Amino acid sequence: MKTTEIREFHTPTSGIFFRAKRRVLSEKTAFQKMEVYETTSHGRVLLLDGLVQTTEKDEFFYHEMLVHPAMMAHPRPRDILIIGGGDGGALREVLRYRIRSAVLVEIDARVIEVCRRLFPGLTSSFGDERVEIVVDDGNRFIRQTDRRFDVILVDSSDPVGPSAVLHQRDFYAALKKCLRPGGIIAAQAGAPLFHLEHLRKKRIFLKKLFSFALYYLGPVPTYPGGLWCYAFLSDRVDPRKRLRKKVPKKLKYYNSDVHHGAFALPEFMRDRRRR
Amino acid sequence: MKTTEIREFHTPTSGIFFRAKRRVLSEKTAFQKMEVYETTSHGRVLLLDGLVQTTEKDEFFYHEMLVHPAMMAHPRPRDILIIGGGDGGALREVLRYRIRSAVLVEIDARVIEVCRRLFPGLTSSFGDERVEIVVDDGNRFIRQTDRRFDVILVDSSDPVGPSAVLHQRDFYAALKKCLRPGGIIAAQAGAPLFHLEHLRKKRIFLKKLFSFALYYLGPVPTYPGGLWCYAFLSDRVDPRKRLRKKVPKKLKYYNSDVHHGAFALPEFMRDRRRR
Repeated sequence: MKTTEIREFHTPTSGIFFRAKRRVLSEKTAFQKMEVYETTSHGRVLLLDGLVQTTEKDEFFYHEMLVHPAMMAHPRPRDILIIGGGDGGALREVLRYRIRSAVLVEIDARVIEVCRRLFPGLTSSFGDERVEIVVDDGNRFIRQTDRRFDVILVDSSDPVGPSAVLHQRDFYAALKKCLRPGGIIAAQAGAPLFHLEHLRKKRIFLKKLFSFALYYLGPVPTYPGGLWCYAFLSDRVDPRKRLRKKVPKKLKYYNSDVHHGAFALPEFMRDRRRR
Repeated sequence: MKTTEIREFHTPTSGIFFRAKRRVLSEKTAFQKMEVYETTSHGRVLLLDGLVQTTEKDEFFYHEMLVHPAMMAHPRPRDILIIGGGDGGALREVLRYRIRSAVLVEIDARVIEVCRRLFPGLTSSFGDERVEIVVDDGNRFIRQTDRRFDVILVDSSDPVGPSAVLHQRDFYAALKKCLRPGGIIAAQAGAPLFHLEHLRKKRIFLKKLFSFALYYLGPVPTYPGGLWCYAFLSDRVDPRKRLRKKVPKKLKYYNSDVHHGAFALPEFMRDRRRR
């Protein structure tokens, strides 16, 4: 059988490749092109509109770093909202804590359906009784709901493309209204090596919206540049202070040392403006 | 003109690619195959035996993290030894400090010659009067010299391949004899995602040889997995303590926050054995 090669360009002339053993699925949903490949190197790989979203081998880097810094910094996270995250990975990490409820708002029902079938390691938490799945546009949901949350996780795709709105000022201003006092937002923010100017501009409005608006970093080997940026947003909680809770067991990447190390930004990302 | 594609396999079925504008050089030296390509995405790229060693765009990640943790942790680094490092990048970083001498021992004179010609941003320090270039096998040099150094940097290639000897116990035992009291060794140690078992074994003998034997991490986008591991070795200096000196200006990655964050190891790299 001919092997298929998956390629993702990170610049117009460079990127990563995987040789797939087979294509498991390829379809056009109402929102995007979705493909799943079986690979030797990375297990199953999910692509949306041609971009690698998740691989079975390295998804833990991303999901642990999106979820645990906020969950560990909050003294008592009870009600959680996830915007996006239809692959289930962020939800799995959230349910490692004794929470009361988790609402996941994913725009594309097919992502959920396909991941439940093809990524069982990611979607095991969808059946948990504390979980509510809402198929809706996250940006619309947050403007209509009167529910309030302790931790909100924005598990969107990249700032360039269909998720662009989830990276803009208006979205974060509306999201802030969904937080309880003392609440925390953590959001996927993009690739420092490729979206640096975007990250600089975003930091300016985030710092106006939140008392603590900090970027933090972690590796994701299959994402562009291998280094990923997240935003931690809160009016009350400084994530660089001592953490209050025991770290969940069986994590592969995150621990409290990693937590504090992640907020140390390289020179090329330093904020030169004083607050 | 047809573009050439450079590929580096990180597993038998996956890796990275660059489309090169042109091949600038390709030759067999006495020790290895050396190639230089001109790319749009990463500037000039140096390959040895088919593996990416240096790209103009992202070499600063590697060279800053190999050099500055040791140089900043040492209270007064005067005499420096670099094993390997024929591309000049580590030397450039060393010369940001007020040192007395730097000896660079590179086995392959052609690497030095070619980099001086094709990578001027890396090799600007070769002409400095404090620098002595020795073309020799680093493993032989350290066993024959009676010189002693404050900081020794091992800028070798990977633990699998021609540099394998530079990753073994005997080499580090011999290297230790070249340190002055209070001296520090920093060594490139490999890819946590691909050489984890090797790193585990190496840590066992390094901890027997040195009071402080610590791994630390930093991103290198074009190296396998995008995340790189270095070893910090000393009998007297704990790099997690307060640093003594002002950080050199104009660095792109390293700063004192990054220094401390780099020693926070992820769960999958944690040392479970107590010392």
